[in-house]
Amino acid sequence: MKHLSITKLKEKAGQQVVIKGWLQTIREQSNITFLIVRNIEGVFQCVVLKDSDAYTASKSLTAESVVEIKGESKLEEQSPIGVEVLVREIIVLSEADPSLPIPIAENAQNEADQQKRLDWRWIDLRKPEKKLIFETWTTMEQAARDYWTSNGYMQIHSPKLMSTPSEGAAELFEVKYFDDKTAYLAQSPQLYKQMAMASGFERIFEVGPVFRANPSFTSRHDTEFTGYDMELSFIDSHQDVIAEEEKLIEAMIKAVKEKHGDAIKDSYGRALAIPTLPFPQVTMKEAKAMLSPHKIVSEKEDDLNPEEERKLSELIKEKAGHEFVFVTEYPVSARPFYHMRLESDPTLTKSFDLLWNGIEVTTGAQREHRHDKLIEQAKEKGLTLEPLKFYFDFFKYGCPPHGGIGFGPSRFLMKILDVDSVREVTYLYRGPKRLTP
Amino acid sequence: MKHLSITKLKEKAGQQVVIKGWLQTIREQSNITFLIVRNIEGVFQCVVLKDSDAYTASKSLTAESVVEIKGESKLEEQSPIGVEVLVREIIVLSEADPSLPIPIAENAQNEADQQKRLDWRWIDLRKPEKKLIFETWTTMEQAARDYWTSNGYMQIHSPKLMSTPSEGAAELFEVKYFDDKTAYLAQSPQLYKQMAMASGFERIFEVGPVFRANPSFTSRHDTEFTGYDMELSFIDSHQDVIAEEEKLIEAMIKAVKEKHGDAIKDSYGRALAIPTLPFPQVTMKEAKAMLSPHKIVSEKEDDLNPEEERKLSELIKEKAGHEFVFVTEYPVSARPFYHMRLESDPTLTKSFDLLWNGIEVTTGAQREHRHDKLIEQAKEKGLTLEPLKFYFDFFKYGCPPHGGIGFGPSRFLMKILDVDSVREVTYLYRGPKRLTP
Repeated sequence: MKHLSITKLKEKAGQQVVIKGWLQTIREQSNITFLIVRNIEGVFQCVVLKDSDAYTASKSLTAESVVEIKGESKLEEQSPIGVEVLVREIIVLSEADPSLPIPIAENAQNEADQQKRLDWRWIDLRKPEKKLIFETWTTMEQAARDYWTSNGYMQIHSPKLMSTPSEGAAELFEVKYFDDKTAYLAQSPQLYKQMAMASGFERIFEVGPVFRANPSFTSRHDTEFTGYDMELSFIDSHQDVIAEEEKLIEAMIKAVKEKHGDAIKDSYGRALAIPTLPFPQVTMKEAKAMLSPHKIVSEKEDDLNPEEERKLSELIKEKAGHEFVFVTEYPVSARPFYHMRLESDPTLTKSFDLLWNGIEVTTGAQREHRHDKLIEQAKEKGLTLEPLKFYFDFFKYGCPPHGGIGFGPSRFLMKILDVDSVREVTYLYRGPKRLTP
Repeated sequence: MKHLSITKLKEKAGQQVVIKGWLQTIREQSNITFLIVRNIEGVFQCVVLKDSDAYTASKSLTAESVVEIKGESKLEEQSPIGVEVLVREIIVLSEADPSLPIPIAENAQNEADQQKRLDWRWIDLRKPEKKLIFETWTTMEQAARDYWTSNGYMQIHSPKLMSTPSEGAAELFEVKYFDDKTAYLAQSPQLYKQMAMASGFERIFEVGPVFRANPSFTSRHDTEFTGYDMELSFIDSHQDVIAEEEKLIEAMIKAVKEKHGDAIKDSYGRALAIPTLPFPQVTMKEAKAMLSPHKIVSEKEDDLNPEEERKLSELIKEKAGHEFVFVTEYPVSARPFYHMRLESDPTLTKSFDLLWNGIEVTTGAQREHRHDKLIEQAKEKGLTLEPLKFYFDFFKYGCPPHGGIGFGPSRFLMKILDVDSVREVTYLYRGPKRLTP
């Protein structure tokens, strides 16, 4: 069931072997046909001689068919991998229609346009550099999980069907539930990871889908994406959360660089660097001051728009030589009601965003855990309290000080690979006009 | 930020220490007040003497408040953990309302009824034996992931918003999407994990929510639950999938037993055994023959009802001494159109369920990967082909033979802990009448 690696194929020189995979290329010459077969182990050269029994069969093969090839392994200097298979028998396991809708281009320049590639995503993903995205994701997530589980974090799987919005009434998907009730799709696990703090779980993480009925088509937005969430108790301020996130990110980038650093450099031209700790920090006020000479038109005094985010990252990179920057102390107006406020200035919150090379990859904060203050802040924001009663109750029977982050792994992967859209790093992108495949 | 462990607290005897946690019990005696504080490290005894500055403050404390206690560590034989804290100062971090809605019972016999506990789930989860469920889940999932990643499986996060049902028109939730379109919540990642096989990912796993608009209230059903899915390519039959699953389950139970075996025995009376490989197997036909002397009323000739599942597990346990049994070769009528059929008898499928002590924890099969056969089988089942066109296309441009499983971790946990309902092992149960908290 497992394929021969290139090394194993060489060791078996002179012996009978079996190679299974996709027929990437069929190249006919006068007395010989080359079959280039691709599988998870790599790309193999197979040779059909004119006098072989397989020669006739090789004439009717179509590119991208899945085949099982039996033959003899032979060391061969002319082969790109130093070994080839002299074909004795070809079995077609799955015949590909010859009208392949998009090419399996050998370099990105030949690629079909993005919409077309998304229509035929499963063929697009056959390219080794696309597969690398999900190998990287697997390594990145495993490293995050290893960090969490070896630092006392427990995993939760919180429900995505809710009776109330988790992040306000905007960008909300409605689900027809039983008895003509309406359920909502979770826009984040926010309420439920805070619940875990009230349960005394103390440190938790969750990996799962989040849903945002966001009508925009930008390269950073989608209507469904994977979120990483963590939350921890008994913190003194948001700085404890920041310190924890830095170690998490260090572990993730380290693991990815170690396992895929060379391949990423080869395929994407991106040289990954393990960030130094601590990451630079600026308050929102400082950020705006740094940006002001650069005359970027900004709609908001209390938040950064994408252009400001890019410029700020640039400035920090010049100044501190760092790809990351935490922007802290967002004004109350820019943050949800549950963010805790600074004792020294209650117009500001104990919150932060993390930018990586110009894009926001995390939002975090210390949360308000005091029942009365929390209700006061919700009222101030003009929220209807009744649907949130069950949430407020989490803080009524003892809940420790806590905080956490929401982390976007697809945006993070964009920056790991230096690609320009979440659509490229998402297995199957979902947008306002895209629900298929 | 991290709590002192009991060992560390002993090492610090005579020194000033800080203990933070929930006030589990307040026990007043004539000249002394005992405060029992619970946190993730355990349960600590703190003592407030009448002449201490903290004595007055201790009078107004309420149970389950979150407190920070400062004082001196003192070795004390009378304390259940051999050490206690002589309290100097008490800071209330979060005051609990004295009308606690459910007790934090010291044993299950005192528990409130399940509905009430689910209403106040975050308080229910404060009990150490409930926290153990999610510690076990974390370990179980990490073991599964370690198995997958060290055996060449890649992770995917497939979309939960779909344009078409993933498992037929029954039990389907509808979502209002953009432009008055309807989206459906994925009933499984079935179509998309098969897509990964057409993409040449060869071995994949996914962990994520699945949604079933199932109106039933049984102890095995919920409207949203976590699914584990795996799929692998270049298999010869469903037996390759079975062999892989056995190794996966062995790794999961081994890790759980090693880390939590004693605690599970203590709290749930369940002695976990690592299953021997291979697991017993019976075909559906053999299963029905074994069951026939036991005269269980069965609605179906081609499937097992819950009573039959329980009886079959009992019979296998008697006969083979094994808690697991694979039931294989379900008739075509009992399986979805995409299950591959036996060459030797096309009325039967290359499929299986896995029972653990009387409950189905997995469904698996080799899938039909041949485009023409697949469409033929879909027609035979009376399906409308048009909405499934994108799925059929996965098999049109080369797709290897493959198969996989859908695995229910909450049912699996029921059996690990020997509890009788998925509601007890789900962080927040969702049912036809339950969307809160």
